[in-house]
Amino acid sequence: MEHVASFELSQEYLERFREAVEQRDDAFIRESLGSVRHEDVSALLEEFNAEQSKYVLELLEKEVASDVIEDLDEDTRAKFLTVFSPTEIAEYVEGMETDDAADILNDLPVKVREEVIANLENYEKASHIIELLRYDEDCAGGLMAKELIKANVNWNVVQCIEEIRRQAENVEKIYAVYVVDDNDKLLGRVSLKEIILARSSTKIADIYNSEIISVYTYQKEEEIADLMQKYDLEAAPVVNVQGKLVGRITVDDIIDVITELADQERKLMAGIAEDVEEDDTVWVLSRARLPWLVIGLLGGFVGARFIGIFEEDLLKVASLAFFIPLIMATGGNVGIQSSALVVQSLASITAFETSSWSKFLKTILVAILNGIVLAGLVYVFVFFSYDSTLAFVVSIALFSVVMLASLLGTAIPLLLDRLGFNPALASGPFITTTIDLLGLAVYFVVAHLLYNF
Amino acid sequence: MEHVASFELSQEYLERFREAVEQRDDAFIRESLGSVRHEDVSALLEEFNAEQSKYVLELLEKEVASDVIEDLDEDTRAKFLTVFSPTEIAEYVEGMETDDAADILNDLPVKVREEVIANLENYEKASHIIELLRYDEDCAGGLMAKELIKANVNWNVVQCIEEIRRQAENVEKIYAVYVVDDNDKLLGRVSLKEIILARSSTKIADIYNSEIISVYTYQKEEEIADLMQKYDLEAAPVVNVQGKLVGRITVDDIIDVITELADQERKLMAGIAEDVEEDDTVWVLSRARLPWLVIGLLGGFVGARFIGIFEEDLLKVASLAFFIPLIMATGGNVGIQSSALVVQSLASITAFETSSWSKFLKTILVAILNGIVLAGLVYVFVFFSYDSTLAFVVSIALFSVVMLASLLGTAIPLLLDRLGFNPALASGPFITTTIDLLGLAVYFVVAHLLYNF
Repeated sequence: MEHVASFELSQEYLERFREAVEQRDDAFIRESLGSVRHEDVSALLEEFNAEQSKYVLELLEKEVASDVIEDLDEDTRAKFLTVFSPTEIAEYVEGMETDDAADILNDLPVKVREEVIANLENYEKASHIIELLRYDEDCAGGLMAKELIKANVNWNVVQCIEEIRRQAENVEKIYAVYVVDDNDKLLGRVSLKEIILARSSTKIADIYNSEIISVYTYQKEEEIADLMQKYDLEAAPVVNVQGKLVGRITVDDIIDVITELADQERKLMAGIAEDVEEDDTVWVLSRARLPWLVIGLLGGFVGARFIGIFEEDLLKVASLAFFIPLIMATGGNVGIQSSALVVQSLASITAFETSSWSKFLKTILVAILNGIVLAGLVYVFVFFSYDSTLAFVVSIALFSVVMLASLLGTAIPLLLDRLGFNPALASGPFITTTIDLLGLAVYFVVAHLLYNF
Repeated sequence: MEHVASFELSQEYLERFREAVEQRDDAFIRESLGSVRHEDVSALLEEFNAEQSKYVLELLEKEVASDVIEDLDEDTRAKFLTVFSPTEIAEYVEGMETDDAADILNDLPVKVREEVIANLENYEKASHIIELLRYDEDCAGGLMAKELIKANVNWNVVQCIEEIRRQAENVEKIYAVYVVDDNDKLLGRVSLKEIILARSSTKIADIYNSEIISVYTYQKEEEIADLMQKYDLEAAPVVNVQGKLVGRITVDDIIDVITELADQERKLMAGIAEDVEEDDTVWVLSRARLPWLVIGLLGGFVGARFIGIFEEDLLKVASLAFFIPLIMATGGNVGIQSSALVVQSLASITAFETSSWSKFLKTILVAILNGIVLAGLVYVFVFFSYDSTLAFVVSIALFSVVMLASLLGTAIPLLLDRLGFNPALASGPFITTTIDLLGLAVYFVVAHLLYNF
């Protein structure tokens, strides 16, 4: 038994390996990578440049090298592949499952892609890959692989086992055999457990389970992830609009989808351009962060202009300025809380929508309750630290800001979702800036009115 | 073939079903739920109260009812189970897999839990459940189920198939047979595919794969999720410190872990107490949100006091107040961006740590670059709209705030992580409040110094 910890990618090993790469120590590299899982080799190669990695990959068995390449981080892989010729890429692609091959080809420049496909020797695989390239990457067609085991409903168990034997090398993980009619229409499934327990002469027609959950090629990845999570599926067959079985999505790809969506949401909430990672260059990182910061800055300019309108009030009552941070921070916090709750409820799978009316009512009640508590606290603080008029102004303004931020924080993600955008955008800087500015407006207008009565 | 869409939990069906529940229309309920998946029945019951649900559950077959209960939302289930007697709960628990049974028992009051266990008729299952209850819920021991197929290394394929037959009812999804020695020590695995393709007389010893990834009972759920995602596992055997096979974790449970962790992170980032959902009561929702809002408020009080120190500066140059929002908003945005990038890099599986030194250097370079761009924009804007001294003050302050927010936004999540807290806390209101206050301090101190020279 090998515990994963048994291959520690330690700093020491990395140093030793780097030396071996520099000295072209083929023997050491072959030997030390011999017992390592391909996922770990991928992680190791992330530390090397394209030329070095090419050298290492060429020392590995073709099939292992294919797995290693397939498992690299997308950006690293794109960088690595620039030093391979289309013929070389084709050889590696030959050793991959069709879905991974399609993903890799999708990232290549069109010309290289065409040349790679032209160089594929396995004609069936080439046509499968070409089929997969037709689909958007974020729908079932783009996620599925062509590798699967299908059995005609008229077969018996022996014929089914023969098919498994024939495909054993192509389909790494089987889970179940999909049952189709003469036109390849999906009828159901037989699990491997049932095949093992059935007699050889049993007809597939007698044992297959017709209550099978399948997805259409055009269904979105979010939907498929929800479905596979809800029904605890380790794989889902994919059918076209005619109900013909065309592919299969496995749970490992769905886990990647779930992780990616969470990552995307985190970045939207933080106001970072989507495709950036901590190990990108300073330029890339800076460029990814500036747009949202500049939007925030523009908001700041508008805010400055706006407060400027009330310069006279400020010169009379400088203490008005003291509470700008409090009003802004509370508005921002309430807005983010509200939008996060909505984003969460949009993300979780619920069969029935609670009526929007009761949701809306509840939002208002929570806002009123929180608004009263916060305004009360502020009133007491300002009353004893400053004066009663200011206490009145700040608490009235704070209450209004809490109401406003709750409503916008709830409404904006719902609106974004309905318009087809990612609702998590609502927690990003664009919306927080809006809430900030509206909060300021409420504060100064309330102050102006109350001080001039 | 049944597409999932074929059972739409429509509003109309819900109305009809509600009527049936009220009129105790047993026939309609039995018939209409007959063809529905248990996950959908669970979703349906979320709309009913405990008494109504009990009535519906009692109309279902015992085994289906067990599945429905197991699949309910945790809070709903706890509410429902209060109207069942321990004997009744025991009957349902009898029909569940051990991991689900342990999860449910964990949520029950101790007295009820003991009574339920005492009422279990299946002695083996009871002892398994008791074993699972010993483990923390967030480690491998708490996630695993006792249901699995194990084969002695000295068996042949026929014996192995016999064992599968014997356990077929208990273990719903098999994936692989785990191979152990006479002392139950885990040696490896044989996939169902290999069993199907092997001859009956083949020795397990000759076909099993000893390169198997297993986890220890004490390993944390995050670690297991990373592992299963990295190596694309649909199940992982769990061993105790002696290497004895004690359970199995399946990928569906890991998907739930990943989703829960993302949900938890989202709430931390938004400053919401962890265990709250949109459909909780107004009180619960309000209580979950107030603590962080009050912390923000306290920050606001400190801010007010702090600005108060510079009241004289403000009375001279009221326009200083105009840029409070800009400084605060930019500081907050930069801080959140920085911490989100760190949280992301902590969440992703990397084998090697880039040296902290080079990370730190990069953070500073990005901060300088962004700081220069933003300060430059502000300088130009303020210079043309107001005057050159103010332009100088605001841009110097802004640059300092960007630097400060970048460093804190990077350092705090790293620190939290090292101290064993969730680094996503760093994007929450507590830290943003700190950055806000420090930003204000920098702004006013810079202004005070420059205006008095």
